[in-house]
Parts: sequence; structure tokens; C-alpha cells
Amino acid sequence: MHDREYVITFGCPDRTGIIARIASFLAEAGGWIVEAAYHTDPDTGWFFTRQVVRADSLPFDVDELRARFAGVARSLGAESDWRIDDTAERHRVVLLVSREGHCLYDLLGRVSSGELDADIRAVIGNHDVLADITRAHGIPFHHVPFPTDAEDTAGEAAAFDRIAELVDEHDPHAVVLARFMRILPPALCEAWAGRAINIHHSFLPSFVGARPYHQAHTRGVKLVGATCHYVTADLDAGPIIEQDVIRVDHTDSVTDMVRKGRDIEKVTLARGLRWHLEGRVLVHGDRTVVF
Amino acid sequence: MHDREYVITFGCPDRTGIIARIASFLAEAGGWIVEAAYHTDPDTGWFFTRQVVRADSLPFDVDELRARFAGVARSLGAESDWRIDDTAERHRVVLLVSREGHCLYDLLGRVSSGELDADIRAVIGNHDVLADITRAHGIPFHHVPFPTDAEDTAGEAAAFDRIAELVDEHDPHAVVLARFMRILPPALCEAWAGRAINIHHSFLPSFVGARPYHQAHTRGVKLVGATCHYVTADLDAGPIIEQDVIRVDHTDSVTDMVRKGRDIEKVTLARGLRWHLEGRVLVHGDRTVVF
Amino acid sequence: MHDREYVITFGCPDRTGIIARIASFLAEAGGWIVEAAYHTDPDTGWFFTRQVVRADSLPFDVDELRARFAGVARSLGAESDWRIDDTAERHRVVLLVSREGHCLYDLLGRVSSGELDADIRAVIGNHDVLADITRAHGIPFHHVPFPTDAEDTAGEAAAFDRIAELVDEHDPHAVVLARFMRILPPALCEAWAGRAINIHHSFLPSFVGARPYHQAHTRGVKLVGATCHYVTADLDAGPIIEQDVIRVDHTDSVTDMVRKGRDIEKVTLARGLRWHLEGRVLVHGDRTVVF
Amino acid sequence: MHDREYVITFGCPDRTGIIARIASFLAEAGGWIVEAAYHTDPDTGWFFTRQVVRADSLPFDVDELRARFAGVARSLGAESDWRIDDTAERHRVVLLVSREGHCLYDLLGRVSSGELDADIRAVIGNHDVLADITRAHGIPFHHVPFPTDAEDTAGEAAAFDRIAELVDEHDPHAVVLARFMRILPPALCEAWAGRAINIHHSFLPSFVGARPYHQAHTRGVKLVGATCHYVTADLDAGPIIEQDVIRVDHTDSVTDMVRKGRDIEKVTLARGLRWHLEGRVLVHGDRTVVF
Repeated sequence: MHDREYVITFGCPDRTGIIARIASFLAEAGGWIVEAAYHTDPDTGWFFTRQVVRADSLPFDVDELRARFAGVARSLGAESDWRIDDTAERHRVVLLVSREGHCLYDLLGRVSSGELDADIRAVIGNHDVLADITRAHGIPFHHVPFPTDAEDTAGEAAAFDRIAELVDEHDPHAVVLARFMRILPPALCEAWAGRAINIHHSFLPSFVGARPYHQAHTRGVKLVGATCHYVTADLDAGPIIEQDVIRVDHTDSVTDMVRKGRDIEKVTLARGLRWHLEGRVLVHGDRTVVF
Repeated sequence: MHDREYVITFGCPDRTGIIARIASFLAEAGGWIVEAAYHTDPDTGWFFTRQVVRADSLPFDVDELRARFAGVARSLGAESDWRIDDTAERHRVVLLVSREGHCLYDLLGRVSSGELDADIRAVIGNHDVLADITRAHGIPFHHVPFPTDAEDTAGEAAAFDRIAELVDEHDPHAVVLARFMRILPPALCEAWAGRAINIHHSFLPSFVGARPYHQAHTRGVKLVGATCHYVTADLDAGPIIEQDVIRVDHTDSVTDMVRKGRDIEKVTLARGLRWHLEGRVLVHGDRTVVF
Repeated sequence: MHDREYVITFGCPDRTGIIARIASFLAEAGGWIVEAAYHTDPDTGWFFTRQVVRADSLPFDVDELRARFAGVARSLGAESDWRIDDTAERHRVVLLVSREGHCLYDLLGRVSSGELDADIRAVIGNHDVLADITRAHGIPFHHVPFPTDAEDTAGEAAAFDRIAELVDEHDPHAVVLARFMRILPPALCEAWAGRAINIHHSFLPSFVGARPYHQAHTRGVKLVGATCHYVTADLDAGPIIEQDVIRVDHTDSVTDMVRKGRDIEKVTLARGLRWHLEGRVLVHGDRTVVF
Repeated sequence: MHDREYVITFGCPDRTGIIARIASFLAEAGGWIVEAAYHTDPDTGWFFTRQVVRADSLPFDVDELRARFAGVARSLGAESDWRIDDTAERHRVVLLVSREGHCLYDLLGRVSSGELDADIRAVIGNHDVLADITRAHGIPFHHVPFPTDAEDTAGEAAAFDRIAELVDEHDPHAVVLARFMRILPPALCEAWAGRAINIHHSFLPSFVGARPYHQAHTRGVKLVGATCHYVTADLDAGPIIEQDVIRVDHTDSVTDMVRKGRDIEKVTLARGLRWHLEGRVLVHGDRTVVF
């Protein structure tokens, strides 16, 4: 159990004195900074920071911190591009799955051991093969079948409506597509913007879309990869949080690539989700700053 | 479900004509070779091969194959340094665990999805925190507590006797120390020689023994690793099957190193175990050939 | 100085008895096999092998070996898909360069130390900035300027004619585009098929064409890569020999990516070239087998 | 050519308000911070920062900046644990080499292309095989032979005296042991403390001392590595700046490991040297903070 902390993330146009302004505000309140990271994008001239302050070093609570910091932000021209999280509030997560269980197993193991500090509120599957392992962890599993007829767009829309309903009742900090294998409709991409995280089983931008390991095998690449990214309406084109690769060779069939790739998918997703929940990922256009 | 295959592993002093002798034997019987690997150690002049033959290409069964191959082996001077496995026989595995669950979760997930073709017959823990997840998979969990008094060597010996009894009733192809954290007594190292597989949480030979991540942190290394190896009576010095590393930096506390290291431990163990079960690992002195 | 060896590479449709046929042929002649590798592509049913035989173990010379092996190959249905190289013949290499010197420096260093056993016969540059370092190694440098007017296709064709002339007089085993930055005309791709090797500064198939690091920066990827491949008329789409990647993050500008990427480019090219010269790379359609 | 910058590195016991104090000092002078990094070591409670300020944003020169910053440092209890570098001053480097040229080639290539902004003032070798390539770059090469008789300690001491003399006349920012293969005497370790950088051809703390690739081969490891570290009187035990590894397997002889390892050695040394010269490496006891 680590100490209660407040996590400030902030962005504004770069100029002289921003660090001094924020640091002085915190210092005057007695704030003990345990982590501080800064970055300026030279192309856009945008300044980013993430600061972690020990809660018990401040003489007021998080609401008062937010109220006071709003003045600082305003004075720096950042009306809304900031946030203060309280680590005392556990992060609510909803997972969307299909048949493949490696990412689910991996996340359940991390939460179960206390390594990943998240409250998995529900798992939703378009198949039910992962219901038992989910429920063995005391987590509700909702089976939302999709129409088998690919032309049945009304049925698909209804399924997504049901999913949205199940997700939204938890107001989650993260909606994780843990190998969900279905393309989110644009309305959900928008509703969950900045919170929906996907793991794509290729090193994007290579092999967008369906069956990336088949595409990789056909092209004869010598490494396969995985990409954790925010979901946007543009398929597999959202801001990238994390990527990794693993070596393959001519002896690897598509099945072997799938197997090797899984090991990369699960750790890449877990890293990306951790960083998202810890407020380490700041989106800037199509790219991310990961502090 | 892949096809039934016979896996031949063989070693003998190198000389001209070994490949021809084995290949001709198989060809004459109509054997369809689906994988063939060869290696000669130039230091010791030892020849190694692993060959995989489709069972349905041979006009006789595995016992007959063994009987006939014995003659080939004898003619090449290899009375006993060979083995023929039948993939129709499922590999029996017993896991030894303690409190840390990441390797157990990982292996259960792989077996559950069918990725790892193994029959986990039992999990034995000196603590019982991993009993529930084990039993949720329909696998027996045996809690064998160890004496809390470190001086109680009789109590420790009795605990190991109980473990040996529980393990040996399954005659397992592999006894996996999945972060078991106890040193096997020499008698068990000998009894399970070539079958007991450990995952050590460092890049051996660095940081032998206890608390390797603490040692790594103190030394200020920039990568931490994991080593999957056969257990011998010489602590952490058995033949290495597989190793991997992950990057760390000055911001990583020991706790962070432990967390990052787990991701390497579990995949390194899983790879090593798979290769062992598939007959890909040939031990040669203190080293391994991994086909 | 290692021993003189004959390197056999061979491909034919898979069937029972190929290994036995080749191994028996060699065994009967007393051939001492020091390396043997086999692979069958399950999709196409094509069999590949590479075998290395000690020259002094055979009672005849390489021409006789070729003559006799032709009969073996014919009997297995492989009229022409095989080759026997003699390591006593040094590999002739011609390098094409532009302004960027990191690959050239790297290869010169490897040849100079004896690590890479190749005879660099000439370096040809469309700029002359790398002339001095080339000549300091006693290697001829040819400056073949290209027209500055991008519309001057006749001038460009003349430059390529001059390059072809300079290259072809050495009948090289490899024509290496060591960051040459010009697209070879189709006629040269064809003339040098299987011998022209390019290093592309991205993890293909991502970021084909010009300025891949700029593309990578814009996309916000978390790793950049390099690809060593055979040149074909289809830009950056030839069979891949080797790839590697290196981690980047939000602090890396395009310039930083270029710098980090260079370290990957040069080792990836060096590995690919070594494997090519050692006869380890067998092309099969759009893919490669690398023994 | 990038802009002229001042690089501030600073360490002191952690407490509230350090960032504010430094940032406010810079902001009041109009200082434009282009990079800022902070770290606190939780074990020792030590605070570290590195800040990069655009020279043209300050109304005074670097000497005045140093004079003023001394007051800030004093007020934070850091009399001497800080430094301000001016990027207008080129970094002077002296290289010590032996017979192996891969690190020298690599550094010469980087400096020659402008990638590494360093002024290599001299190369000193105990053999002269690398004299030609050094001089081809217009850099003086000094051959300082060592006695062939290992018992001739007076001769060895005289050789080191000559080296010290040759090095010290340049007052270098870095003395790089680019595979020098000789153990520096304690007096030189002390004289060059924090400036002498070695590349050791193993993943330390594994395989300290002589012939690490032989040790690695004997132990049967599956990865070999390289370590760039500051030289101290304790052999191969100085603070680690950077490490990297590359995969090997049972087919790799010691010679192969040496060859593969070289690719890691040269990039690891180049990264470590770059970071040192850019003031990114802060030593803290036996470990380093690398910003």
C-alpha cells in the first residue's frame, strides 16, 4: 500500500516561467513533490507536465487543490487542459473480450496479486468462454452475443447498445478491448474518447485490420509486434501508448506467430493500461506523451 | 489438434555418416520427417540431432520404432543417449509454488487455452494463497506448509518428503519450480535430474541466491533478467534453457524491478517448459542445445 | 582463418527420403558435414537444405562435387534450384552510397578487422563525401553524380548506366545499397536479382518510400526499425532478410530517431550481408529462409 | 548545428521547494528551459535535477550564471554538487585502444558525420594497428608499447606515466577505454575519476575480468552483453552508465559470441559516452542517474 498522492497533469502553450509558476504554487502550500516530469513538443510548442504530490503534505483536500490550481491554470492560459487525480480513488475498469483469454488472464493475475491497482467492475464478452475464469475472481461476466448474420446491422447495433449500457453504469476510467475483435461504432468511440484502450496484434501502422499475423506471415517479416492505443473512429489509427515486438523466423507458422505474439500483446496492454490509469499518458493530436 | 508424431532425440560422438545412417533408416521405413535439426559441439566433438516423424508414415508403432532404432543407435555407439517420444502421450506436469502467482496464472492460462499441451496433474504450495485459482481450473492443490522455525531441519525434511510423495505419484515429465522459493534437497535434485525446471529471477550467473532484485538494484544495473534452468544440487548453476531481460532505469525502485521482472520470468519459464516438453532441450555437460 | 568448406544449398518439392539421399551421397564420398539445416514450408510443400562439408574430407574437388551432385539433384527433381559455393573463393562486393556514412564505416571496419570475409572491390557514390574514408582503406571510390534537375531522366539513366558498368566489371556476389537513397531502375533490379541488397530505414512494411523517420514521428510509434531486403522492382517490397528495432519515445525528435535508427540500420545490414555471402539466405517467393 | 545552451546539473538532499527555488531563479532571469528532469532517490533522500536553458534567453553570460546560481545552490545546501556546462565549448575526448578496432571505427564514424559532437584530441594505443585509420581522420595517434614481460612492473608503470602525460595535456572531458584491455593503475583511476569510461564486454556483474566471452560460453548463457561504466580502482565495479545484450545460442562458438558482442559493445559505449558528454549522467554512490 503506497501513500495517498495527488497526480497533476497539465498542458499549455510553452513560455518562460511555467515550471516556476506551478512549482511555486505547490511549494507555497508545502506540497512535497515525489515525481515531476516535463516535456515541450518543439513542433507545436506545447508544454506538458505531470507532477505527483504527497497528499499529507498539503493543508487542504483534493477539491481545494483543484479549486486553487484552477487559478494557476487560468493564469497560464490552460482553462481545461489539466486534471488532478486522487490515488485514494480506485480506478474502475471494464473489459471487453471475445474468445482469446491471454490478455484477460494476464490482467486478472495482476489485479489479483495487487500488482495492478484497479477495480475490474465487469467483463463483457460476445462469447461466453471466458465467463468461468472471470467469475472465479468474483467479477461479473456479461454475455452479449452478436448476430451470426453479418448483414444484421440492427442486431449488431442492439448488442453495442447493451454493451454501452453495461459499461456506462460503472463510469469507468478505462474501457479495455482485451482482444475484443469487434470494431466499436463511432458513437462509442466518441463517448469513450481517451478512455477506450485497444490492443492490436501487430506493430502498427503495419497490418491494420483483420488477421494481422496472416498478413505478417505472408510478408515474411522477421519480427511481429503488438500495439496498445486509444480507440478512435479511424480503425487502428488512434494515438499509440505502447508497442513491443518479438522475433520470428522462417520456421514459424501463422500459429506460431499467434502464440509468440500473445506474449507481447498481454504485456504491452498491461503496460499501456497501467500508464493510463496512473495518469502518465497525455494525448497530443495523434501522438502521446508518456511520462 | 496437430498430427501424431514421434520425436527422436539422439547424441553420440561425431563422425562421418551419422545423418546418412539415421535418415536412411527412416527413409527405408517410409518415415516422413517434418522437422530435422543437427548440431555438433566443436569443443567436445559431440553430435546431436532431433527429428520429428509423422506417426502415420511408418508401418509400425512407437514400440517397434524404439526397438528398431536401438539397433541404429548401437551401431553409432550411442547405447543410451537417445529417446523417442510419442506426442499422443500427454505430458504430465507438477508445479511447485509459494505465494507469487504470476507464473502459475500464466501457465494455467496457456494450458486452458490449449496453447500449451500439458496435463497439470497437481500444484503444491508451501503457502495456500494460490489454492483457489488452481482449483478453479479443476486441478488439485496440495498445501504442504514448512516449519516457520528455520532451525527445524527435521520439519523441513518431512515437508520435502511429503512433496516428493505427491510429485512422484504422477511420474511427471516436468517438475516446475514456478517461483517456489525453497532450495530442493540434493536427493530430490538427483531424483528429478533433467526434469526439475526452475525460474530464477535474475540474469544468471549474476545475482545467484536470495533477493536478486535487491542485489540488482544495489549494483545499479540497467537491465534485469530471468533464467529458466534445470535444477542441480549446485544452487542456480544448472544448465540454462532460456534467458531474457527487460530494461530498468534509475527511477525504478526494487518494487518496480520486481514488477517488471515478473513479465520476463513468466514468459521465460513458459518458453523453457514448452521446449523441454517438446524434446527440444538436450543437456550436454553444464550447457544445453535447444533445437 | 577457418578451413576450406563447400556450402550446398538446395530446394525441391518435399517427399520422403530427400535427407537420406543427400546425406548418403555425401557419406559415401567420405564427406564430413559440419553444419546441416533443413526446413519444409508447410504452405507450399517446398523443402530446403543447407549443408556445409569440409573440403579436405572429400577425395575430389569442387567441380567434381558439382558434377556428381547434379545427378543427385536431378534424381530429386531439382534441376536448377541448388548451388555449391567454395569458401576458398572470396566474395566480391560493390557498395553504392550517397552522403550518409554510417553503414559504409561499419562495413569497412568489419572487413578491415577480418570479421567480415569479403572483398570490397569498389564503392560508388552519387556524392563524393565518402571518397576519402573509402580510399583510406585502399578501395577505389567512383563518383557518379546524378542530375540536379529531377526532370532530367536521360541524365539519370546515363548515371545508372555508368553505375551498372562499374558494378558489372567486378561480377560481384553482392551489390549493397548502403543508404544509397536512389531507386534502382527495373532493368538493374532484374540484372542483379538475388544479389542486390538494400537497407531500408523503417520496419517494413511500415513507412515505405521517402523519409520514413518523418513518417514514424508523425505517427507517434514507440519503436523505429530497419529492414535489410533483396531489391526488386516493387519498391521496398522485396524478400526480407533481417529486421531489427530500437525504442523511441516522445522526447525523440526526428533527428533523434534518425540517430538511433542508424545504429539499427548498420547492424541489420551487416547481418543480412553476412548471411547472404555465407549462403544462408534462400529466397522462396516473397519470403526468405535464413539458415 | 543546434542552439547554444547551458546545462545545469545539481544534487542536494530532498526537501520541499527545490524545484520552485531553481525554476523561479531561472524564470526571473527570463531563462527559457528546453529540458528539465528531476529525480529523488527514495533510499537516500537525494534530489537530482538536470536543466537545459537557451543561452540567448538570459541577459548575462555563463560565468555570471554560475556566479548567481552558486547562491541558489548554497541556499539549498549544495555547496559543490552542481555544475553548469556551456554547449559552445566542444567536449575534448582522448581514446585509449589496443588491437580491436570496432569501437574506434564506430566513434570515428559518429564524429566524422557530426552525429557525436566531440573533439577527439588523440588516440593512444599499446599496439599500433589502429594508427592508420586514426590518422586518416587527422587525429594524432600515439603508440605507447607495454613491456612483453608481465613481470616488468617498472616498464608498465613507465608506459602508464607516458599515457597519463599524453592524456592530461588535453584536459579531456572524457578518457575512453575503447577496448583498451589494460587495467588502469589506482592513481589514474583517481586522477580521472568521473571522466574515465570503460566498455566491458559482458553484462556486469557477470563475467568480471579477463575473457568474458569464454566465461559466457562455458556457462552456456543465452544472451551476451556489454557494460559501459565509469572506471574505479575496483575492477569492473564502477557505476554503470549503460548496458545492452544480444541473443546467442548453442550454435555460437566463442568466436561467434565475440563477433555478436562487438555490435553491442560499440553502441553501448557510444550511448554512454554521448550521455556523459551531454551531462546526462549523475553519479550517486555506486549507481548512476541517467537523465
